[in-house]
Amino acid sequence: MRAAWFVGNRSFDVVERSATAPGPGQVAVDVAYAGICGTDLHAFHGAWGDELALPAVLGHEMSGLVAATGEGVAGWADGDRVTVNPLDWCGTCAACAAGNTHVCHNLKVMGFGFPGAMQSRVVVPARALVRLPDGLDLDVAALVEPTAVAVHDCRRADLRAGEQALVVGGGPIGVLIALVARAQAVDVTLVEISDERRRLAASLGLRVLDPTRDDVSAVVAEWTDGAGVRVAFEVSGSAGGVETAVQALAVRGRLIVVAIHEAPPPFDLYRVFQRELTVVGARVYEQPAFAEAVRLLAADEIPAGSLISSVLPLDDIASAFESLERGHGTKVLLDCSA
Amino acid sequence: MRAAWFVGNRSFDVVERSATAPGPGQVAVDVAYAGICGTDLHAFHGAWGDELALPAVLGHEMSGLVAATGEGVAGWADGDRVTVNPLDWCGTCAACAAGNTHVCHNLKVMGFGFPGAMQSRVVVPARALVRLPDGLDLDVAALVEPTAVAVHDCRRADLRAGEQALVVGGGPIGVLIALVARAQAVDVTLVEISDERRRLAASLGLRVLDPTRDDVSAVVAEWTDGAGVRVAFEVSGSAGGVETAVQALAVRGRLIVVAIHEAPPPFDLYRVFQRELTVVGARVYEQPAFAEAVRLLAADEIPAGSLISSVLPLDDIASAFESLERGHGTKVLLDCSA
Repeated sequence: MRAAWFVGNRSFDVVERSATAPGPGQVAVDVAYAGICGTDLHAFHGAWGDELALPAVLGHEMSGLVAATGEGVAGWADGDRVTVNPLDWCGTCAACAAGNTHVCHNLKVMGFGFPGAMQSRVVVPARALVRLPDGLDLDVAALVEPTAVAVHDCRRADLRAGEQALVVGGGPIGVLIALVARAQAVDVTLVEISDERRRLAASLGLRVLDPTRDDVSAVVAEWTDGAGVRVAFEVSGSAGGVETAVQALAVRGRLIVVAIHEAPPPFDLYRVFQRELTVVGARVYEQPAFAEAVRLLAADEIPAGSLISSVLPLDDIASAFESLERGHGTKVLLDCSA
Repeated sequence: MRAAWFVGNRSFDVVERSATAPGPGQVAVDVAYAGICGTDLHAFHGAWGDELALPAVLGHEMSGLVAATGEGVAGWADGDRVTVNPLDWCGTCAACAAGNTHVCHNLKVMGFGFPGAMQSRVVVPARALVRLPDGLDLDVAALVEPTAVAVHDCRRADLRAGEQALVVGGGPIGVLIALVARAQAVDVTLVEISDERRRLAASLGLRVLDPTRDDVSAVVAEWTDGAGVRVAFEVSGSAGGVETAVQALAVRGRLIVVAIHEAPPPFDLYRVFQRELTVVGARVYEQPAFAEAVRLLAADEIPAGSLISSVLPLDDIASAFESLERGHGTKVLLDCSA
């Protein structure tokens, strides 16, 4: 089998290695495709510092086939088509005790706290497996995980059909949120600064705004008859995006905080008070989001496959990261089949 | 009758004037007591600028007796003991149309948008009146309005009995929130920087912390067995208070934004994301909060009368404001009886 080790300093060593047999309760999966996520790019940039032990095999978005099952694993057989929920929780902290294992105080994520999918075979706990229906292609299935993020974000927003929602930030997660919300009969507008990303979103039938040219406030005011939107998703990670989202909201509107803000941005708490806004943090997903994501993709309710801009062999992992870093492409998949 | 005109530049003119008769749908009330609120102090400091037309009669916390009723007013008679809901809404904007008249886009508040209670007689719309039970003293009844604020803040927090809540800021509203929450069997700790205010809160049986000496994080960690509090109220209006409140919250905890932040403070959106926090703006009150505030005060479920640090004649209004400005006293009432 082959594995791509991230060794720091924007470098990978792609090496041949012998496969590990699955231990008790574990399953080995032959990886078909692994997606590159923004958090993987952060690691590539060195943003994780000492938090990421090197060398590391990145990758928490994937699809593949069960290749071997460890002792005590029931319900899975070789050849089963799967993706994985990449979260691993401690089960004992206050968050887990309250039933919120997905925001466990000691949460580990595949590819960061333990080996990820950017290799031809990966060993995972059986509880991580999510079954894929036959009709769902394995390349599209590598997008189940980011789609589950979007499903969770929309659940946290408590969306209702007919509501108007602004999505600020049109990377893969922003576009997926817009598509999932649209599939729930929500009236969506997407704000994105990159021409390439705006073009992709528009090609999927989404209404798009360019905050460098369009007067977002004026458009929102006209669109909502002066009321403001019921829901805004902050997916940009920028202080300007936060401001755009907050100012767009109607009285009692909901702001969903999806993006990671490494530094605390200035935040208009007066507006939160004045309009009685609700701000809701949304992180990863709870287990039911996976079933919903699989359903949306299998039923073709959202055109997630259109987000795949290229598929490169695992050996080309460095150039795949570099290309994304230069702002090209939306979702790049690595073909990890041996 | 006498009226205290705020003429700007930290000055009042207390003058004798003739009373205005109530018009159709209006009621004249002989003011017994008017409370001085933090927003009145803001006006005194000139913080409202051109938004406040001068001269102005301030005052939106009051109690009194109905003195005359205008044409078409039913259900009220001379001598009825009352307080008022000081909000006036347009009825036509998007917020009003959605039923949220208390956060009307064109909201006016008695004492700011129209004449307030710092005079011996005030004319108000009949719909503003709230009836007081016989057993409720008129001085304590002047605290119905700030108590309604606290009731609304606790409603926005969706408090459940047995939850742990941190109140950051121990001015009159912070203490009232702590008392209302305690009356709902919530386990409350109050954080306040002023010795005098902390002493008052402690005398009411509240657990208090001094953020300049106590390690609030450590105390919260021990108190909540490492989980953090379910609810934090930001009533300080300071960036440090915001940070204290955000860091104290458990996974999926709720931050209630009560204070006015004139400038957007840095806000830890990463923590909001990481712990899936909910941030809820809470402004003034909806009508049912008045009935609940009256009930709490009349039944003596909260010792609001203990917040009254002094009662001064209307003629001494300037020295009352100056004393509060120097940080003395909690709730100062003006005796407005002619």
